[in-house]
Amino acid sequence: MSKEGCLIVISGPSGTGKGTVCNALLDRHAEIAYSISATTRLPRSGEKDGVNYYFLTKPVFEKMIRDGELLEWAEVYKNYYGTPLKKIQERLTAGQDILLEIDPQGAMNVKEKFPDGIYIYILPPSMAELEQRIRGRGTDSEESICCRLRAAADEIAAADHYQYVVVNDAVPRAVSKINAILMAEHCRADRNLTFIHSLSRQERK
Amino acid sequence: MSKEGCLIVISGPSGTGKGTVCNALLDRHAEIAYSISATTRLPRSGEKDGVNYYFLTKPVFEKMIRDGELLEWAEVYKNYYGTPLKKIQERLTAGQDILLEIDPQGAMNVKEKFPDGIYIYILPPSMAELEQRIRGRGTDSEESICCRLRAAADEIAAADHYQYVVVNDAVPRAVSKINAILMAEHCRADRNLTFIHSLSRQERK
Repeated sequence: MSKEGCLIVISGPSGTGKGTVCNALLDRHAEIAYSISATTRLPRSGEKDGVNYYFLTKPVFEKMIRDGELLEWAEVYKNYYGTPLKKIQERLTAGQDILLEIDPQGAMNVKEKFPDGIYIYILPPSMAELEQRIRGRGTDSEESICCRLRAAADEIAAADHYQYVVVNDAVPRAVSKINAILMAEHCRADRNLTFIHSLSRQERK
Repeated sequence: MSKEGCLIVISGPSGTGKGTVCNALLDRHAEIAYSISATTRLPRSGEKDGVNYYFLTKPVFEKMIRDGELLEWAEVYKNYYGTPLKKIQERLTAGQDILLEIDPQGAMNVKEKFPDGIYIYILPPSMAELEQRIRGRGTDSEESICCRLRAAADEIAAADHYQYVVVNDAVPRAVSKINAILMAEHCRADRNLTFIHSLSRQERK
C-alpha cells in the first residue's frame, strides 16, 4: 500500500502541554518528520538554524512570501514566522508523514490548502487544570493568567473546526490516542483507493 | 466525556476472515456488544436462540418489517434475515458501542439510517491469498471457487463506500487497526461537542 504521507497538524491552547505531547509522539515515531518553521527573529541562546527554526533575513522571508513558498505565515511583534512549503511537499510525496505544531489561525489556513491533512486539537482535561498548569510555570502575572485563560476558552470554543480532539490528561494516554488517529487515518478507504482497485483488478483481468 | 455509543459495521468478502477478526475484537473489548440478527430459518445443531440468532416465525418477522422494527432485512433462499433496531438504539443511547457484521448491501442500508456509524471493510492481502483461503476450507467446487472470487472482486471494487479498509494479513494486526479506528472515532471533534463547549463555558461564565 504505497501512498502519499499524511500532514499531521496539532494545535492547542497555551499550557495544554501540546509541545510535550508532540515531542513524545516524535520520539515514538522515527518515521514522522517535524516541520521546522522559518522566522526572521534572532536565534536565542542554544537555538540552531535548521533545528529549532530556519533563521532567515527579512528580505529572504519576504521573497518567499511573494514566491508562494510558504504554506502559511504571520507577523508577530515585527518578526515573521512561517511554514516552508517545499520540504512538506517533498516529504508527503515520498510517503512520509509530517507533523506541524501550529496555532489555530495558521492551522485553518493550512487546512484550505491540505484538506486531507489530519487536524488534531489538544484539550486540557478542565479549565481548572489548565489554570493550575499555567500558574505552575510561575512565569505569568495574575493579569496575564486571566488573559491566557480567556484566550484559551475562546480558542477551545472553535476546536470543532478540527477533525479530532485529544484530551491531554496524561501524556502517554494522549500520545496513544494520536497514534490511534494516525493508524486509523492510514486505514481510510479514500487513502487506499489504489490498493482497493488493484485488488479487485487482480481477479477481474 | 459521556456520549452516545458508536455503531460499528464490519463487512468483507467470504473467505477474508472477518468472522475471526470480529470474534477477536469482541474478546478484547468486553464493552462492545454484538448485534444478534433475527432469522426465520431453523436453528442448526448447537445454535441457540438469542445467542447465534433470534429465531422467529415468518408472521412475527413480517410484522417486524411492517412495524419498522428492523434496521435492515433481506430474504435469502426463502428465509428472512434482519437486524432488530430496538436493542441497537437502546445500547447506543446508553453509550455502548455495538458491532454489526453484515453484507455490503445491508451495510449501505444501515449507513443511510446511521450515517455516524463506523463502516469498516475487511480486505484480503491479495486475491491469490483469498483464493488459497477459500481452497483451504475444502468445501467448495472449482466452479464455486471461481464464482466466490468473482463476487469478492466485485464487492471489493465497492469498498470505497466504506469509511475504512483493514487488510487482514494477520488477525492480531487487523484487530489492532480496528482498535485504533475505534479509539480515533471516539476522538472525533463532532462526537465531543458537548465536552468542547462545556470546557470553554467553564471559563467564560
